[in-house]
Amino acid sequence: MSPHPGPDPDAFAALLCDWCLEVAPGQRVLVDSTTLAQSLSLALHRALLQRDAWPFVRLTPPSLASDFYRYGGERHRRESPPVELALLEGIDSLVRIDAPANTNALADIDPGLIARVARARKAFVELSLSRRWCGTLLPTPALAQLAGMAEGEHAAFVTRALFLDRPDPIQAWRELSAAQATLIDRLAPARRIRIEAEGTDISLGVEGRTWINSDGRRNMPSGEVFTGPLEDSADGTIRFTVPTGPRGVRVSGVELTFRDGAVVDARAEQGEAYLHAALDTDGGARTLGELGIGTNAGIDRPTGYILLDEKIAGTVHLALGRSYPETGGANASALHWDLICDLRQGGRLSADGEVVIADGVIAP
Amino acid sequence: MSPHPGPDPDAFAALLCDWCLEVAPGQRVLVDSTTLAQSLSLALHRALLQRDAWPFVRLTPPSLASDFYRYGGERHRRESPPVELALLEGIDSLVRIDAPANTNALADIDPGLIARVARARKAFVELSLSRRWCGTLLPTPALAQLAGMAEGEHAAFVTRALFLDRPDPIQAWRELSAAQATLIDRLAPARRIRIEAEGTDISLGVEGRTWINSDGRRNMPSGEVFTGPLEDSADGTIRFTVPTGPRGVRVSGVELTFRDGAVVDARAEQGEAYLHAALDTDGGARTLGELGIGTNAGIDRPTGYILLDEKIAGTVHLALGRSYPETGGANASALHWDLICDLRQGGRLSADGEVVIADGVIAP
Repeated sequence: MSPHPGPDPDAFAALLCDWCLEVAPGQRVLVDSTTLAQSLSLALHRALLQRDAWPFVRLTPPSLASDFYRYGGERHRRESPPVELALLEGIDSLVRIDAPANTNALADIDPGLIARVARARKAFVELSLSRRWCGTLLPTPALAQLAGMAEGEHAAFVTRALFLDRPDPIQAWRELSAAQATLIDRLAPARRIRIEAEGTDISLGVEGRTWINSDGRRNMPSGEVFTGPLEDSADGTIRFTVPTGPRGVRVSGVELTFRDGAVVDARAEQGEAYLHAALDTDGGARTLGELGIGTNAGIDRPTGYILLDEKIAGTVHLALGRSYPETGGANASALHWDLICDLRQGGRLSADGEVVIADGVIAP
Repeated sequence: MSPHPGPDPDAFAALLCDWCLEVAPGQRVLVDSTTLAQSLSLALHRALLQRDAWPFVRLTPPSLASDFYRYGGERHRRESPPVELALLEGIDSLVRIDAPANTNALADIDPGLIARVARARKAFVELSLSRRWCGTLLPTPALAQLAGMAEGEHAAFVTRALFLDRPDPIQAWRELSAAQATLIDRLAPARRIRIEAEGTDISLGVEGRTWINSDGRRNMPSGEVFTGPLEDSADGTIRFTVPTGPRGVRVSGVELTFRDGAVVDARAEQGEAYLHAALDTDGGARTLGELGIGTNAGIDRPTGYILLDEKIAGTVHLALGRSYPETGGANASALHWDLICDLRQGGRLSADGEVVIADGVIAP
């Protein structure tokens, strides 16, 4: 065995079929990725046929998505893509595998154009979300580069994040789901959540809001519980100790102060101009949309990939902007920017005064 | 410039859009190929966006098609693939780019199973043919290997076959189309076609049948005129001087003798057992379904790829089995096997006694 085993394609495919999508005979399943995902897409094709489902594999060259912005005209910026809509009409579920060749492939595209196309695709997004869906990632050289890792090291890291290093990955996800349900039992009755760490003391109202158990069925890997805090409730200061890289811009050392739910002071060691621009996106951008607690013990350090970073066991994250409606949150901003505070070097999260996370560990 | 320039992706894409598919604004166009066709599919994506059409690129790993037979169950052998049907419902036209990694990828699949799946896909095939479609090929190492050529040499050969070495490829196809129309004007009134060469003297009735001008709009490259001979009309002997490789089996030196339309004697220097098995496929397999005349001057030698070989300018081909209904032919066999006779080393084709092709050249 290699010193850095990456995810085994057949084990990965089985996890996606049997845990994430719960594929049943006759179901029509779209596998959507780039040409970098050949092994995993072949494994999924095999696994779906063996489960008596109908696989439909669609790979595109990694640079196709950015070419759409570069060469598309008014028509393409105004409508949902019609063939994609017809395809979504014809499926029961889909898995999207993020397998980029360059995490900055959109760096030369006007962010305003990206936002405009996203708004024009409302019908497409709604139809996608009406299907059973799962989003995952495949280790690629670009993702290893983003993480500051060699490729084998990164592949092994992602394998641990997916629990594919465990003897029975599905059982491991089932256990995470049960542990998160227990955590939610402790959080759900609380009216206020307080986060304390060096440079951080902030409290948020969560009364009446729903906590979601994100156990890897939609995002694989996952490992977080989250809710939408009351929009006018945040008070205090938080220092986000994990850097983030929205659209390839490095932003670190972010410190935000809230009064009555809104950001009243914002600074950053790096990327402060970007931070201020983001806060000015729209009316909801200065207000929180999410409070999340990471629980994935396979993710032990940040890699610049937000969907992994926010799941690090022992961290909490707050998102500026849009909330998830299923939490009861009402923030409809175009922004959703997750910022992470690591509690593992000293810090705690308490619910109505009861300590729930201490120094990154769930308190007994 | 390289000594062996392959097809330029942008020029190839323009030819497919503007000659083969005649793409119009708003049309929804499927680009279907393997992951070996990344450059051409990106060029088509750009070209379609620039023509204000909706591209939908779908690439699959080269080994996906054979895995379908290996891992599919009863359901997959009994029905047309439902997601493919939904996709076809949502498009106006499609281009299929043959870009194999191994021309013998189906060698271990039972031919009976392949035939069964083909029959089960009737709805899929009919829906495909109801759309505007074009089939083409991209040079790959596997196709070069089949041709006995180095890769650059093969890419240059395919470039010439596509007329992409000409200053104005679309004008070149327009001229081929006009020349073929003139050829058809000479052939259409004829009651009988006679082919003579060393070891060959055969005549076929074509009265009342339609000659088709195959000018590269459906198959790119093309360059042939063809019809369906009267089913009971073939009389005489023909020696096919170009080897063929159906399903990877090499068959060469085929000599067939016909009486009243049916094969009464058949021999081959190589692959004779395969030849006899093919003739026993069904009732129509001993009868001709097609008579074609190749006119593509860019294709100067056989490469083992039948869709190119049968277009060699100066050759004629006869197909055992199924005829194309648009010719008026009535042969409904499951077999369609094109066999080629090269007239360039001495031979002629005459229509009611008038010599139309002499030594491979159209007679004035």
